[in-house]
Amino acid sequence: MGEIRKKIVTIGGGTGSFTLLSGLKKYPVDISAIVSMADDGGSTGVLRDELGVLPPGDVRQCLVALSESSETLRELMGYRFEEGGLKGHSFGNLFLSALEKVEGSFSRGVEEASKILNIKGEVIPVSEDSMKLHIGLKNGKVLIGENNLDHNEEIRKIGIEKVFLKPRVSACKKALEKIRQADMIVIGPGDMYGSILPIFLVREIADAIRKSKAKIVFNCNLTNKRGQTENFTIDDYVRVAEEYIGKKKIGYVTFNSKRIPADLVRKYESHEGKGSVIKFHAGYDRRRSFRVVTADVLNANEPARNKNDLISASRAFIRHDSDKLAKVIMMLLEIGDYEKIIKGIF
Amino acid sequence: MGEIRKKIVTIGGGTGSFTLLSGLKKYPVDISAIVSMADDGGSTGVLRDELGVLPPGDVRQCLVALSESSETLRELMGYRFEEGGLKGHSFGNLFLSALEKVEGSFSRGVEEASKILNIKGEVIPVSEDSMKLHIGLKNGKVLIGENNLDHNEEIRKIGIEKVFLKPRVSACKKALEKIRQADMIVIGPGDMYGSILPIFLVREIADAIRKSKAKIVFNCNLTNKRGQTENFTIDDYVRVAEEYIGKKKIGYVTFNSKRIPADLVRKYESHEGKGSVIKFHAGYDRRRSFRVVTADVLNANEPARNKNDLISASRAFIRHDSDKLAKVIMMLLEIGDYEKIIKGIF
Repeated sequence: MGEIRKKIVTIGGGTGSFTLLSGLKKYPVDISAIVSMADDGGSTGVLRDELGVLPPGDVRQCLVALSESSETLRELMGYRFEEGGLKGHSFGNLFLSALEKVEGSFSRGVEEASKILNIKGEVIPVSEDSMKLHIGLKNGKVLIGENNLDHNEEIRKIGIEKVFLKPRVSACKKALEKIRQADMIVIGPGDMYGSILPIFLVREIADAIRKSKAKIVFNCNLTNKRGQTENFTIDDYVRVAEEYIGKKKIGYVTFNSKRIPADLVRKYESHEGKGSVIKFHAGYDRRRSFRVVTADVLNANEPARNKNDLISASRAFIRHDSDKLAKVIMMLLEIGDYEKIIKGIF
Repeated sequence: MGEIRKKIVTIGGGTGSFTLLSGLKKYPVDISAIVSMADDGGSTGVLRDELGVLPPGDVRQCLVALSESSETLRELMGYRFEEGGLKGHSFGNLFLSALEKVEGSFSRGVEEASKILNIKGEVIPVSEDSMKLHIGLKNGKVLIGENNLDHNEEIRKIGIEKVFLKPRVSACKKALEKIRQADMIVIGPGDMYGSILPIFLVREIADAIRKSKAKIVFNCNLTNKRGQTENFTIDDYVRVAEEYIGKKKIGYVTFNSKRIPADLVRKYESHEGKGSVIKFHAGYDRRRSFRVVTADVLNANEPARNKNDLISASRAFIRHDSDKLAKVIMMLLEIGDYEKIIKGIF
C-alpha cells in the first residue's frame, strides 16, 4: 500500500519458472514473469494446431506458481485428463485457450486468468506472435519446432549448434517496460534451448536486457541434457546465455552446493549420460565476469509439488527447492546478511 | 447477516433453470437449485462416456446463473470449443469434470466450483448415482438415454407413454434436506421429460415433495414439443407433473399473458407443429386444484443471454424473461401488492 517494492523480472518457462516463482511470491516484491511462447509439444501443441491459439503451457505453470487462490483451484489447473478425446490435455491449458477465444487475445486472456486465479505479480507472454523455434544441428540440418528438443533422437546424437526464430516476432510492450523498470532480472532455472534462449531470440527483449541496469542473476540448472547442454559447465551456461543476449551482462550465477543423493544421480545419468548431473568445483576464477553463489538450493522432497501434472514431475527428479532458491535470490536482491545462507561466493 | 431469508428450492435443469435462477438471485432469498442428472447428450454425453463422470451440463448452467463473478468468467463457462478434438465441448463442462476428478466426487467438485464462481445459493445434483433415463413409447418400445428426446424421430412420431429410471438411484441427502426446509418449491420452466420429471423419478425426492408444506409453483412452458408434450395444455402439464410426484401438490401455475410475436410463433410451429406454442384462454375453472397466475413473463429480447452457448440459445427462441418471471415468483412468495404485476389469478 504505497510502499516501494523492488521489481524482479523472471525469464523462463516450464517447471523451472514454476519452482522459482512459487518461492519468490512469498516475499514483498513486485514480480513480473516473462514467459517463453515457443512450446509446441504435448497438450499445448495440440491446442496450437487445432485451435490456432498461442501456447498456454508455460504461462499456465507461471500463473499457478503465483496464484494465491485455493489449493484445489491450483491443482485443477495442473490436472490432466486421462481418457478419451481429452486425454493428455491439461485443464489449465484448456482454460487459457478458452479465455483467449472469449477475450479475443492471448494477453487479455492471461490478464483475466490472473484475476480468476488471484495471482501475485504479473505473467507476461514474451510475444503475442506465433513463435516457431528453429533448431540448427551441428551437421547443418534444421529442425522446426520446440517439441523436437525432447523427442528427436538426432538432437541427442548430433547436438545443437544454435536456435533461431523464423519469422521474427515482436515483443510484448509490457515485457519491455518491465525489463526497463527491473531492479533484478532472474534467468532460469529451466530448459536452456526450449525456454530460456527463445526469450532472448526476441530481439527487442535482448536489446532491453543489454541496456538494463538491473542486477542479472542466472540460476544454473542442476543437470544437463544430452545433445543440448551436454557436458556444460557453469561457464558454458553463462557463455551461451550471454551469446544470445549479445553482451556480458550476467552478474551472479547461483549453483547448488548440496550433495545430490547417489541413487538420484545414477537414475538421471542412466537417461542423460555420465556426467549429466553438473559438478562444480568451488573456487574463484578471476577470468569470470560474474560471481558464483553456491548454496543449498536442492529440493530434498519427492518431485510431486504439482501432483496431477505427472508429465512435468517425471521430467525433473533432481530439482531446485522453491524456498531455498527464493531465499538466495532475495539475499542477492538485498545484499544483507548473506553469510547465513550462502556457502560461498566465488 | 443473521436475518431469516425465505428458502426457495428450484427443480429443473437446462436453459429454463438458467433463466429462473438468473432472475431469482437478485432477491434476498436462500436459493437451492436441485438439478436433474439425466442428461447424456452432446458434450455432457461424451464426458460421461469417456471419463466416467457425472453429467455436468445442467449443473453448469445453474452455477453460471447463480454466479456473482465477472461477466468474463461466466462467459467462459458457456464457451464451446469450435475446432479439433475439443469441438463441441463446453468449457464449463470440462471445468466440472476436471473438478470431479480432482476432488474425487461430483458433489465436492460442485461445491468447489461454487466457491470459484462465487455463487449465490447452492446447486445440488439430485443424485450422485449415474442416472439412465428410460423412455417408454406409446407402442411399448423403450429407448434408453435422455439424449433420445431431442434426436430420436420415433419419439416425434409415436409419442412418449412414460419415463422411468433403471436402476433406481438414491437422492443426494442435501437435496432432501433443502426440500424439507423449503418455504417454496418452484418447478420449471424446462424440458418436461428431460429435466423435470427425471427429478421426481428419484423416489425419495417425490416422497419429500409429497410431504412438503411449502407453496409449490409450476412455471408452465411457453411451447410444447412434438411427441413429448404435444398438444399439452396447462392442465396436462400439471396432471403429468403431479402423476410423477404422486399427489396433487401444485398450488400455483404461472403462465405468460403477453402476446408472442407472430413471426416467432410461425418459426417455432414450423419445427414443432401447429399449436405447439401454448395458448391459454384466461378463465376460472373450478375443477382445478391450483390457481393459474398469468403475467407478462415473456422475453422480448434476442435469445442470446449466454452468447457463447449457441447450442442452447438456438433451442429456445420463445423464452421466459428472467426478471419478469422472478418478480412473479417473489410476489407469490410474499403475497403482497401483486395486483401491480399480475394480470389475473384464475
